[in-house]
Amino acid sequence: MAPTRDAIRNTVENYVRAVAKGTTDDVLALYAPGATVEDPVGTPTRTTEAEIREFYSMIEPLDQVGEVLTLKIAENNAAFLFRLVTHLGEQDMVMEVVDVMTFDDDATITSMRAYWSQDDMQTVPAT
Amino acid sequence: MAPTRDAIRNTVENYVRAVAKGTTDDVLALYAPGATVEDPVGTPTRTTEAEIREFYSMIEPLDQVGEVLTLKIAENNAAFLFRLVTHLGEQDMVMEVVDVMTFDDDATITSMRAYWSQDDMQTVPAT
Repeated sequence: MAPTRDAIRNTVENYVRAVAKGTTDDVLALYAPGATVEDPVGTPTRTTEAEIREFYSMIEPLDQVGEVLTLKIAENNAAFLFRLVTHLGEQDMVMEVVDVMTFDDDATITSMRAYWSQDDMQTVPAT
Repeated sequence: MAPTRDAIRNTVENYVRAVAKGTTDDVLALYAPGATVEDPVGTPTRTTEAEIREFYSMIEPLDQVGEVLTLKIAENNAAFLFRLVTHLGEQDMVMEVVDVMTFDDDATITSMRAYWSQDDMQTVPAT
């Protein structure tokens, strides 16, 4: 049975929160076994847990705030725009990205593809 | 050679304008031969020009205004949030959708997948 919209929304909110504030294990817990990650789209797809863990462990130490701006759900698929603000001393790096995800029946992530490029990152004075 | 970001942005802007204000031919001209359309995601993919033409001809007669709200580009891929307002007499139907597209070297669309559901449509008094 397809996951409910609320279950998908919950996973997406938990994902952005975990990416910004959580540990690598918090993020990995939202992924199903065998999940794939392509971030950004056009780079090689990460297909093993070790590769996915390596990816998120790079951002784990960063001081970040995350927010889901727009979420669209279609069956067991979602596309969402989110903002990630990384505090870097006297500057903030602001990044807005569209992620596309697929989910299994438990609303666990089976794939993630992230649409962004360098042009979507900007540095501003810290607020 | 991958299309430039400007070329992709141009195709996306032309697409939303053609969907809102143009003819079915205007929309079809933006698609490459062999392109596929899945709208919304989770429904059967349209794989022939006849199927794609049938899809857009349904919305051709509608009185609409379209606007690209956010566009993210990654190599020859794009994800964008757009708003489509359809004038229905004394009411407007407002719809916000995330489309994901791939492009060939000429920035012509090779695939489109649309993320939305009934929950993303709302009817408001006409402005």
